[in-house]
Amino acid sequence: MTYCGLRIEKKSAIRIRRSVKREKDALLAESEIVSVLRKRFGGESFSVVKGIGDDAAVIRIPGATQYWVLTTDQLHENVHFRREWTGPKQLGHKALAVNLSDVAAMGARPRFYVVALAIPRSLPRPWLIGFYEGMVRLGRKHQAILIGGDLSHSKDGLHISLAVLGESVRRNALLRCGGKPGDFLYVTGTLGKSAAGLRLLQAGAQTGKTPSERQALKAHREPEPRCQVGMWLARHGFCRAMMDLSDGLSLDLLRMCQESGTGAVVHGDRSPLFPRSRAWGCDPIELGLHGGEDYELLFAVPPRHALSLESAYPAKYPKITRIGMLTRSLHMKWIPESNMRPRPLAPCGFDHFRS
Amino acid sequence: MTYCGLRIEKKSAIRIRRSVKREKDALLAESEIVSVLRKRFGGESFSVVKGIGDDAAVIRIPGATQYWVLTTDQLHENVHFRREWTGPKQLGHKALAVNLSDVAAMGARPRFYVVALAIPRSLPRPWLIGFYEGMVRLGRKHQAILIGGDLSHSKDGLHISLAVLGESVRRNALLRCGGKPGDFLYVTGTLGKSAAGLRLLQAGAQTGKTPSERQALKAHREPEPRCQVGMWLARHGFCRAMMDLSDGLSLDLLRMCQESGTGAVVHGDRSPLFPRSRAWGCDPIELGLHGGEDYELLFAVPPRHALSLESAYPAKYPKITRIGMLTRSLHMKWIPESNMRPRPLAPCGFDHFRS
Repeated sequence: MTYCGLRIEKKSAIRIRRSVKREKDALLAESEIVSVLRKRFGGESFSVVKGIGDDAAVIRIPGATQYWVLTTDQLHENVHFRREWTGPKQLGHKALAVNLSDVAAMGARPRFYVVALAIPRSLPRPWLIGFYEGMVRLGRKHQAILIGGDLSHSKDGLHISLAVLGESVRRNALLRCGGKPGDFLYVTGTLGKSAAGLRLLQAGAQTGKTPSERQALKAHREPEPRCQVGMWLARHGFCRAMMDLSDGLSLDLLRMCQESGTGAVVHGDRSPLFPRSRAWGCDPIELGLHGGEDYELLFAVPPRHALSLESAYPAKYPKITRIGMLTRSLHMKWIPESNMRPRPLAPCGFDHFRS
Repeated sequence: MTYCGLRIEKKSAIRIRRSVKREKDALLAESEIVSVLRKRFGGESFSVVKGIGDDAAVIRIPGATQYWVLTTDQLHENVHFRREWTGPKQLGHKALAVNLSDVAAMGARPRFYVVALAIPRSLPRPWLIGFYEGMVRLGRKHQAILIGGDLSHSKDGLHISLAVLGESVRRNALLRCGGKPGDFLYVTGTLGKSAAGLRLLQAGAQTGKTPSERQALKAHREPEPRCQVGMWLARHGFCRAMMDLSDGLSLDLLRMCQESGTGAVVHGDRSPLFPRSRAWGCDPIELGLHGGEDYELLFAVPPRHALSLESAYPAKYPKITRIGMLTRSLHMKWIPESNMRPRPLAPCGFDHFRS
């Protein structure tokens, strides 16, 4: 969610599309759809702290000690996954993980979730049980409880949609819009690993032969939502804008910049790429910038807090890396190596609704 | 929701399937799936008042003055609707209505909702806007606010999934399981009108020629969730079990009976059927008992409260009708006319997962 999380079509995850040609009556591009929905249908109310336009919505509940967040995210067969590439437990895990990642991106604690599932009549019973097993196992790890759902027949493959309700930490939700020029940009974990895993699957490699291949496949099939990091950041107050990386750094960073009214510069030599993917023909920079589904956190930290953050950050959590900063200029730039000139960084995630 | 709301496949909405033949490895029938999910994956926690197995889940939120309910429900093209039969505004209305109906069935007030939508690339822009217009218009009528969602490309038609968060009235949620033998059974509105509308659509009638046809088409395309009635009932404490009728009275009543540990007897001559559907070849009794998607409320009232309920019930609300009672015997029975002997009432909603 939230109308900023258009999933990448896996086969085209890293395709760069620059020419946008639209038919008059065709759909708007994603950002325009979001803008229209927000303007026309975004409800304003005292009880809505943040509505359409962030990873999750943030609401006030009368009497509650915290803000609460609500998010929804969906996976459709042959758009977001292939059943021959992903086992039921892995898919159950992933379906919840992509939602928990949205909750993590608000700095909130996931509490409850519901799942709407449409399945073909032929689906074997063990598959269905495995799906729930994978989902519930991940949920338990993060203290999120399955409280209900809806089950339906489908004529054309599996359709999965979840909604997760979470609780803020210290009555504080980290939005995309809080960044200021000069803020340092950090990410958790590694960028481009999931896309490298997808490349392996597209090449027919179901099981990795090397530890790197296995890591990449696992990152793609069973991403780890960064719930603990998100809550830690919300609790400690070091950062002032956050989101998760679902559609590739270049596209997601643009969203943070647009919401915050800034530009950004990203340093290639400081970015936590996954260079071992070269072994199977990937370009780690392209995947790190434009590959989707990392489900890592991207957050902006005022420079005065950077040292405190880096020294207080628990070593047991996934590493964090400073990759650049927000700028007053509204452009997004990319410096491949420290002695090179900045280049424009185009948001190259795949947009479903562009022709 | 909640794993008890398997939607009826429209073309087969009123088919009666008695012979159940299963392959060993095939899926379980619906009630068995629900039972397995509930046993294996239903999380127990102080914060969960009611988890898997009701119209919506009921949760405690720290500090909140009320219980909160969360529900999800989905509509898939050519399973739950056809685009050539339903306009975008109507579909947006219906997608929210089926979810609000679940909230109403708990006696709760809908507050916030999110929508996950997967759409074909070719979908015209006005269609999308119309869909949201229909949805938001109904939401405003019931003070429910659209706070976010997720938008994705689909390769095979429209897939819609909503989640609604609601607030209980007087810290009281009306569950399916509260009924006792001897309780009177009531329903709101008319039974079988939506199924009669579906019959018209199946026969190629897009617009009704008579007021009755138009009523039936509207009941099918734009059902009115009974939010006000649900809240009124929760506030006044007359009834002790409630659910909505989404899959036909016979199937839904069975669910209430199973949860409450009772049987039931239903009087045909007292049931609020839609006899005018005879004009286009329908059997009002069959549609009233087994036709789905009425989205009326079914509720159980202790006999000592029946008179108070009937005299206090506001005339401006949709009429309520006493159709029978819960019984100690676990069977479901049907008395066509007052001087006739009871007949077994078989739950004849269509089960997606039976072969």
